[in-house]
Amino acid sequence: MVELEKIPHLDEISHHGVFQGVRPKNTATFRQRTVAHNKLMPSLEEAIRRTGLKDGMTISFHHHFRNGDHVLNMVVDTLARMGYKNLTLAASSLAAVHAPLIEHIKAGVITHIETSGLRGELAEQVSRGLMDCPVVFRSHGGRAAAISSGDLHIDVAFLGAPSCDPYGNANGYSRDDDDSIACGSLGYARTDAKYADNVIVITSNVVNYPNAPWAIPEDDVDYIVKVDDIGDPKGIMSGATRYTKNPKELLIAETAANVIEAAGYLYDGFSMQMGSGGASLAAARFLREKMLAQHIHCRFALGGITGQIAAMHEEGLIDRILDVQSFDVDAALSLKKNHFHHQISASYYASPLASAAVDQLDFVILSALEIDTDFNVNVLTGSDGVIRGAIGGHPDTAEGASLSVVVGPLTRGRIPTIIDHVNTVVTPGATVDVVVTDQGVAVNPNRPEVAQKLKKAGIRVYTIQQLKAKAEALVGKPDPIRYLDRIVGVVMYRDNTILDVIRQIDETEA
Amino acid sequence: MVELEKIPHLDEISHHGVFQGVRPKNTATFRQRTVAHNKLMPSLEEAIRRTGLKDGMTISFHHHFRNGDHVLNMVVDTLARMGYKNLTLAASSLAAVHAPLIEHIKAGVITHIETSGLRGELAEQVSRGLMDCPVVFRSHGGRAAAISSGDLHIDVAFLGAPSCDPYGNANGYSRDDDDSIACGSLGYARTDAKYADNVIVITSNVVNYPNAPWAIPEDDVDYIVKVDDIGDPKGIMSGATRYTKNPKELLIAETAANVIEAAGYLYDGFSMQMGSGGASLAAARFLREKMLAQHIHCRFALGGITGQIAAMHEEGLIDRILDVQSFDVDAALSLKKNHFHHQISASYYASPLASAAVDQLDFVILSALEIDTDFNVNVLTGSDGVIRGAIGGHPDTAEGASLSVVVGPLTRGRIPTIIDHVNTVVTPGATVDVVVTDQGVAVNPNRPEVAQKLKKAGIRVYTIQQLKAKAEALVGKPDPIRYLDRIVGVVMYRDNTILDVIRQIDETEA
Repeated sequence: MVELEKIPHLDEISHHGVFQGVRPKNTATFRQRTVAHNKLMPSLEEAIRRTGLKDGMTISFHHHFRNGDHVLNMVVDTLARMGYKNLTLAASSLAAVHAPLIEHIKAGVITHIETSGLRGELAEQVSRGLMDCPVVFRSHGGRAAAISSGDLHIDVAFLGAPSCDPYGNANGYSRDDDDSIACGSLGYARTDAKYADNVIVITSNVVNYPNAPWAIPEDDVDYIVKVDDIGDPKGIMSGATRYTKNPKELLIAETAANVIEAAGYLYDGFSMQMGSGGASLAAARFLREKMLAQHIHCRFALGGITGQIAAMHEEGLIDRILDVQSFDVDAALSLKKNHFHHQISASYYASPLASAAVDQLDFVILSALEIDTDFNVNVLTGSDGVIRGAIGGHPDTAEGASLSVVVGPLTRGRIPTIIDHVNTVVTPGATVDVVVTDQGVAVNPNRPEVAQKLKKAGIRVYTIQQLKAKAEALVGKPDPIRYLDRIVGVVMYRDNTILDVIRQIDETEA
Repeated sequence: MVELEKIPHLDEISHHGVFQGVRPKNTATFRQRTVAHNKLMPSLEEAIRRTGLKDGMTISFHHHFRNGDHVLNMVVDTLARMGYKNLTLAASSLAAVHAPLIEHIKAGVITHIETSGLRGELAEQVSRGLMDCPVVFRSHGGRAAAISSGDLHIDVAFLGAPSCDPYGNANGYSRDDDDSIACGSLGYARTDAKYADNVIVITSNVVNYPNAPWAIPEDDVDYIVKVDDIGDPKGIMSGATRYTKNPKELLIAETAANVIEAAGYLYDGFSMQMGSGGASLAAARFLREKMLAQHIHCRFALGGITGQIAAMHEEGLIDRILDVQSFDVDAALSLKKNHFHHQISASYYASPLASAAVDQLDFVILSALEIDTDFNVNVLTGSDGVIRGAIGGHPDTAEGASLSVVVGPLTRGRIPTIIDHVNTVVTPGATVDVVVTDQGVAVNPNRPEVAQKLKKAGIRVYTIQQLKAKAEALVGKPDPIRYLDRIVGVVMYRDNTILDVIRQIDETEA
């Protein structure tokens, strides 16, 4: 018998007292246990009850199922039925499929939203004053930082997963070669799983333990709910992402690749991130040709990953892929198959509070809805002032990369891309180095050495004001958007300071 | 300009104020950055100063370099030179190579030790009263739990790594196919890296970013120190672990395999853990023969991994390996090569506070120095009362597994293994199901169904008292060890209650 009082320095050793006996022995076989003693809950309601979720708390979701997601609506419908009110919904992003939230907002179930983006009818209505509290928009890195710092405390994370074993090892695809749903990386969900007080995994595919390698480890998971339907495969992932055939986009892509080369960021062992937009994706093709011609390889490709990047990896042109989000089926298959196609968390990808991969980028190619003469970029609100996009990793990569290249057509229909002041600042101009349009290139005046190098390489460099004038010459100066005073959205910079606000659009007759 | 006072519900949105501008742009290429802007410190001293380490704080180390470790002595020598006093040294385990700690203890640099085990001269001297504060012994799972709960708060973790990139992505081997040191899994270090306030990686091999896949991610690492020598490869890893040719051990191994089969825990899809001792390792060979004969496979093998387990994985007999510690070079190579040989943390392996892999074990085969008639097991102190072993995962796996099988020779020389009371309780008898010796098998009375099944299968079952009597008939009853009152060690159970104490041996003339 241990006599505590005889132990010297007991205070420094333990405050848990003397051994009180072991747990009851579980004598069932491992196979029997996985059926009888696991984290599977009989219903979503029961899992929610076990978490102790209360009115006023914060729930979170990931957006790896994109517009095919059936998890978020199912969960919020359930919470509404259970009588919850006044919840904060913190999603890594929201899509058009989440329009049913409108009714839950009207009913007071959801009273605050944090997200990277909004689209569709929900975005329309938010822009028209649906919510009392402004929607908070954060970048992927800013969200990860807010979660890890406690600024965004998650009480219950509801994480859809294409496969999960009975103890919570969850992944964005199945290793059993069944024909289940796949979304590839679960990078954004990993940060939620790590920091949320309670984690419920929602899956349609319970697989054998251990579901290794996993995206989310069992020690981060509290409950599992099996449902028939987590999403529509067609909405979750389109098939292979195709290269654009649009000549304007191809011209922009080729110019972007030339700019990167001329600026000195294409060398043996470089690093890169590509967006999934037509022009930025097509740039990969022109970069590939340069790499083959010059016998150089890429050390790592980062971010949202497409099948094109995966193919270059398999071709031996890219050593490592760090994948926070798989954009298509080919990327998801590569993640499953290739040892050096590696899944990373949102925090690892882009948190400004931690050592992050975006800080090791040579260049990033990014899209834009609007660019202004201070090089500020808007990817969130349309030319009518209505929310219709997402911040994503835009400001994270623009700040982190040595060279940020923003690409876009000079005009879209009758709308100029380059204007005096963007409607919404998402990425501060100080982090945007080069603007590439189909009608010319502009370099940020704070990067004179880049302008020099481009000129030396025979690339004509305009001022941003000249590009703006070209755009206005083509389509005229747009009428200013009319806003009401009321603030409907707040845009946070990645350090979680307030960068800009979005106001309610004014639809009264002028 | 954002006017904060106009934002409704500002209190719910942010307390960080308005955007103040971006960081200065880093325009260096990624390659230049990795040289000029990284976490590499010019010296260990500088890294230590940056952590803010103070007298009285806790430093931690891992034991993946076993008896070849040069990191711990180098760090503590440095701390002594820098004038530190009164530090707590929390290692995942300590080996004979760490004898130089004795001088640092005498000098007051180290005043408290927490570890899984002690061996060699340090263990001898601790057993003879070297330290004022008792050494705290924890199991691997108990240590992980203590770290995650804050019971064992680590101020600075000093983590040796065979490869690390300039931002801290560290691994137990190199992916560059150089001939650097390898230790395989860094499982124990992962828990330290996750929870320590400051993490210094000490490496002899700085590799290209990103060192993916990694054991420790860069966001868990603060500083990196490059040194010429982190350890002696021969001490870190022996070559291939060989199967024993000792006939007594082979008999025990074969009996253990028969026991497991008879008890019903060998079926298609079972799970297992083997120790690295001669008999428990040899059991793998007999289990393999049964698996081949019966066309069954193992779903996963857990724990410390040997080349034998890796070979069975490559042979298709084991689906998944969950590796917290690689015992030999072949295991380390398999971890590097095989997609389904997966590295896990100490917490994932065995923490009683989290969902842990030990709880999914069908069976574990464990060694013992002493077993008593209550089935308590001692693996920590020798028959002379001197500390000469390590708890390891012994109590974690015994409690977690459906069937824990403790193997050992009935006698070692003139010393009986089965006695009335073990000198030190490391694993409570209530968690030990079957004892297998070369002279017979005993089943814990709390598992009558196992005894039944064994008898049905033709395995003769003795009582533990009968085995004790057999041992005494062979070598007689040992003289009791003489102890002083002074407590020199405290054994924690995995829930961090105090299970037993170790007293100073009495070497006065009787």
